[in-house]
Amino acid sequence: MVERLSAEARQAALAELSGWSETAGREAIARTFTFRDFNEAFGFMSRAALVAEKKDHHPEWKNVYKTVEVVLSTHDAGGVTRLDIELARAMNGIARQLGVS
Amino acid sequence: MVERLSAEARQAALAELSGWSETAGREAIARTFTFRDFNEAFGFMSRAALVAEKKDHHPEWKNVYKTVEVVLSTHDAGGVTRLDIELARAMNGIARQLGVS
Repeated sequence: MVERLSAEARQAALAELSGWSETAGREAIARTFTFRDFNEAFGFMSRAALVAEKKDHHPEWKNVYKTVEVVLSTHDAGGVTRLDIELARAMNGIARQLGVS
Repeated sequence: MVERLSAEARQAALAELSGWSETAGREAIARTFTFRDFNEAFGFMSRAALVAEKKDHHPEWKNVYKTVEVVLSTHDAGGVTRLDIELARAMNGIARQLGVS
């Protein structure tokens, strides 16, 4: 099983993850991405969904037109793990290719 | 511009829309779809996204693993319009093909 990161490890990882922060009230990390339109927002989601499915590690996310709010945590571990950090990093990479950094 | 439905027209439309109901606190309709897994949930979203984009009328939706919570309303009209009813009906059709009725 993948291990829950300590608060220190989580903060160190977040420091290198542009746009992500800890969520209030639960052990998770979050970022809201804002694209140009629905086409780009859903394009981002489609690419991120393939990454998530391949990793068998899935986001909680909400889409309203051009925005995508993402929350990541690892249910089985009760907190944030390297799986969340890896998925966050992959999402940033996809967003960057769409011009969102 | 597309017209906001009256409360009566909204309720009449909802009566024929399996699984949909009015949301509390705002003029909108909502349904939570539960699929077998992420693959089916995101498959549903992908097909619904194409319909939404074609109609230029988009949902608010949240996906957590195998569930998709959808809220529909027409911002410009300040309430529910035929666009929402049509999109809800299309979503039900897609879900039905995935075995969710």
